[in-house]
Amino acid sequence: MSAVRFIPRRFTTVSRSLRFTSSLRGRAGVIRSYAAAAAAEKKNASTPTVKLTAEMYPEIQRDSRFAKLEEEDLAYFRSFLPDHAVVTDDTVGFNIDSMRKYRGQSRLVLKPRSTEDVSKIMKHCGERKLAVVPQGGNTSLVGGSVPVFDEIVISLSAMNTIRSFDDVSGIIVVDAGCILESTDNFLAEHGYIFPLDLGAKGSCHIGGNVATNAGGLRLLRYGSLHGSVLGIEAVTADGTVVNGLGKLRKDNTGYDVKQLFIGSEGTLGVITGVSVLCPKRSSVVNVAFFGLDSYEKVQQAFVRAKSELGEILSAFEFMDKQSQVQVAKYSERQKPLDEQHNFYVLVETSGSDAAHDGEKLQNYLERLMESDLIEDGVVAQDETQIKSIWTWREGIPESLGRAGGVYKYDVSIPLDELYQLVDDTRELLIKAGYEIGTESSNIVDVVGYGHLGDGNLHLNVAIKNYDKKIEHTLEPWVYEWIQKRQGSISAEHGIGFAKKNYLGYSKDPSMIKVMKEIKQLFDPNGILNPYKYI
Amino acid sequence: MSAVRFIPRRFTTVSRSLRFTSSLRGRAGVIRSYAAAAAAEKKNASTPTVKLTAEMYPEIQRDSRFAKLEEEDLAYFRSFLPDHAVVTDDTVGFNIDSMRKYRGQSRLVLKPRSTEDVSKIMKHCGERKLAVVPQGGNTSLVGGSVPVFDEIVISLSAMNTIRSFDDVSGIIVVDAGCILESTDNFLAEHGYIFPLDLGAKGSCHIGGNVATNAGGLRLLRYGSLHGSVLGIEAVTADGTVVNGLGKLRKDNTGYDVKQLFIGSEGTLGVITGVSVLCPKRSSVVNVAFFGLDSYEKVQQAFVRAKSELGEILSAFEFMDKQSQVQVAKYSERQKPLDEQHNFYVLVETSGSDAAHDGEKLQNYLERLMESDLIEDGVVAQDETQIKSIWTWREGIPESLGRAGGVYKYDVSIPLDELYQLVDDTRELLIKAGYEIGTESSNIVDVVGYGHLGDGNLHLNVAIKNYDKKIEHTLEPWVYEWIQKRQGSISAEHGIGFAKKNYLGYSKDPSMIKVMKEIKQLFDPNGILNPYKYI
Repeated sequence: MSAVRFIPRRFTTVSRSLRFTSSLRGRAGVIRSYAAAAAAEKKNASTPTVKLTAEMYPEIQRDSRFAKLEEEDLAYFRSFLPDHAVVTDDTVGFNIDSMRKYRGQSRLVLKPRSTEDVSKIMKHCGERKLAVVPQGGNTSLVGGSVPVFDEIVISLSAMNTIRSFDDVSGIIVVDAGCILESTDNFLAEHGYIFPLDLGAKGSCHIGGNVATNAGGLRLLRYGSLHGSVLGIEAVTADGTVVNGLGKLRKDNTGYDVKQLFIGSEGTLGVITGVSVLCPKRSSVVNVAFFGLDSYEKVQQAFVRAKSELGEILSAFEFMDKQSQVQVAKYSERQKPLDEQHNFYVLVETSGSDAAHDGEKLQNYLERLMESDLIEDGVVAQDETQIKSIWTWREGIPESLGRAGGVYKYDVSIPLDELYQLVDDTRELLIKAGYEIGTESSNIVDVVGYGHLGDGNLHLNVAIKNYDKKIEHTLEPWVYEWIQKRQGSISAEHGIGFAKKNYLGYSKDPSMIKVMKEIKQLFDPNGILNPYKYI
Repeated sequence: MSAVRFIPRRFTTVSRSLRFTSSLRGRAGVIRSYAAAAAAEKKNASTPTVKLTAEMYPEIQRDSRFAKLEEEDLAYFRSFLPDHAVVTDDTVGFNIDSMRKYRGQSRLVLKPRSTEDVSKIMKHCGERKLAVVPQGGNTSLVGGSVPVFDEIVISLSAMNTIRSFDDVSGIIVVDAGCILESTDNFLAEHGYIFPLDLGAKGSCHIGGNVATNAGGLRLLRYGSLHGSVLGIEAVTADGTVVNGLGKLRKDNTGYDVKQLFIGSEGTLGVITGVSVLCPKRSSVVNVAFFGLDSYEKVQQAFVRAKSELGEILSAFEFMDKQSQVQVAKYSERQKPLDEQHNFYVLVETSGSDAAHDGEKLQNYLERLMESDLIEDGVVAQDETQIKSIWTWREGIPESLGRAGGVYKYDVSIPLDELYQLVDDTRELLIKAGYEIGTESSNIVDVVGYGHLGDGNLHLNVAIKNYDKKIEHTLEPWVYEWIQKRQGSISAEHGIGFAKKNYLGYSKDPSMIKVMKEIKQLFDPNGILNPYKYI
């Protein structure tokens, strides 16, 4: 068992080669990139580089049932909203998505300050048949939060008040426009944690998180929003305020209608308020990062983490070699591990006792070493190191986007075949005659990473320029591959504009029929977030 | 700190007075009482003691839209079901609820063996407008699972196969008729646990659990079924099989329609299959039981448990003095504590390391003693003692029912006012001129207990005979009391027949309107579980 003797050096102190310096940007530095991208675009508004969605997808036509915006409409909105809440001059940032793939043509952004404002807006739009797009932090990865044609953008950004918090039960009630990170910071002061964390936390709104049923980094520990959201207040297509903002952990009085809004992507109503059950924040957080030589071993390490770390396991993220090469291109940080490995795993534990948690993690890592499952690894020694290690996971999407664009596939597949999709995609592209990663090739790399604990893979094909030919090589091939394994073509990113035509690869016709009936029930004229979802 | 010196004696070894003997019935002994009650009723079928619901509630009339069962219908059902699955002679046990409060008049019980059978039954009933009641283990506490008039009972008892289990992901797929306890025993063999536990586990079906969104004893730890149920297969009113039996932890492809079935109590469709994400079973379980002198101190002990026991806390149940007096009347067991206390708490921890968990629990209890929050307590030393202590909580409903009947209120209220409802109810009855607990009085006692961790109180008024005058003293007074605190009039038991008229006390009119539209959408003729819910 020669490997064992390395453990004290590697795992109880950080490897000497991992020089965490004070100049390193924290996690917040990376996650604000979404907002930065939108801001950059605004500056370049005179020379937009993102093509109109209408031009890119000429087969999609504006729905002639919808009215066109008129001066009378603007006058009505101005009758109850302040001038700065009726934006007609600077709408570019609201028309372009965070992936810079879609560009709408809306001439109007409304910024309601209250649920009553939203109700008035929707009542008017419902009567006039004016189509709308509810928009939170505009961090959708599937073009879900920007207009396709001239839909009015309803930005929830001015509704950002924490309505109440009960520090015995941990139940918080927030406006839809509260930013995830700000809300989590507020909760931290009270010893609680928001049961959701994701890369875009610095920009995304809680209303948007709920509307898209965001998954993120700690679903493994805290479960899905379907379990932790206790209540929703929403405004439907005719301006009705559906008041389901309960603050009870248990309430079996009738159909759980709020569940329909979770993940409905603004197609059933505009979410204006949310109540959420928040867990106690763990006082002790540990992060380990290690390298492995095969996907098979990654799976074994996961199964052991579930039983050996048990109740303190809070994240189990995996990354392939290619993903780390991309992050390293742009990161100023020293890599956590000196050598290159085929796979990397980030394990996080969250618990209440430093000695107990440390012992569990130490035992877990030692056993992995003894079983020759891992090749090398480090454990973060403080909060700065924890944040730094996390950037090697959270920084992947931004790094991949730097070259130009990314074809993103966010899928659920049974664990044993999860990584196979990445290998098969690489092979598919090579067979189709594409070069990968050369100076002249459009394809930068094919990369796989994700939330292994949830069976959720992010397959990313980074490219210099979006190219319909590459898109048609990948789609529907990727979706067919997933359908064969009864997986999900969208694990957490949702459907939006990008995946609308592919729903049938994951959902039974009987289920799609019911969905269409529900849409018809809530929004008979289809004015809520049209051309998307269903 | 004189209290501290008692700890070693009281908490590290079981009090000498707590003589756990091998003759004690385990937990299973109590929980089978539901089935036993039904069996007893069957034997006494010739002299039924439960009045017909139609007689007790003459204001409710049979819906004339529904057809009456004819010989041709029976012939059709017999054409694809075996004889023993078309029950017409011995239907008493299916007509009477577990509370012995309601009695329907169904002349037909069908026991389909497959989803296809259910589909054929519903297609026929839909065309003929024959009303139906889906029935699982018939353990409803609100009269939800028995007919009111002549509805056909669809018993899922013959559909009880575990369809699949994946021991890497912990995802199990079961027929709706699988019994909760049997399924949990199966999972135990594989190191997993069903994320739900409740007193009726020996009889209740998983399909019924999901249809009623059962809460139970470990919701505190594993969350609600809205989070852990991954997929549902159901048959709607026209025989359509809605296939949403996904086996993915994350799947954001369209509206989460299955959520509507969770807690719909058989009014939208007959659930035939369920897939559930099961957590790893904890290898170490500890149970402590202690006495406190005020509800205020119970709350303080809970807040401390959340932070000090943190991730290993799996149950925090509280019981008042009166509840324990009732259990003691019928229990053969020695009481866990010698002296009487005003309140009792049962704390359970579930974790992965015996030494760590024991230390956390010990520290927690010592601190409670130091702060004079608890008066006395014991910690179970083995599995037999754990089961025995649990009977003092789980045995309450059965004990209360022994005298005759129980008016049960299962409510969610903000924690600080939770127990006030019990005191106020007692006062209400006394002011109304009722005696409580005397030889001649009809009211045996007014009792409070429940899942403090979930803000869920069980207020029980045990009586010798059901009496409309008592009922009218209690209702709607109890519901108004709850409405004032924005609580829920049904935290986990559901609506069924008993609470149908009181939905408005917990739900906004805008929400009830949406619910009615959803019911209309799924079941336009209202044949699914009529006269109930909404």
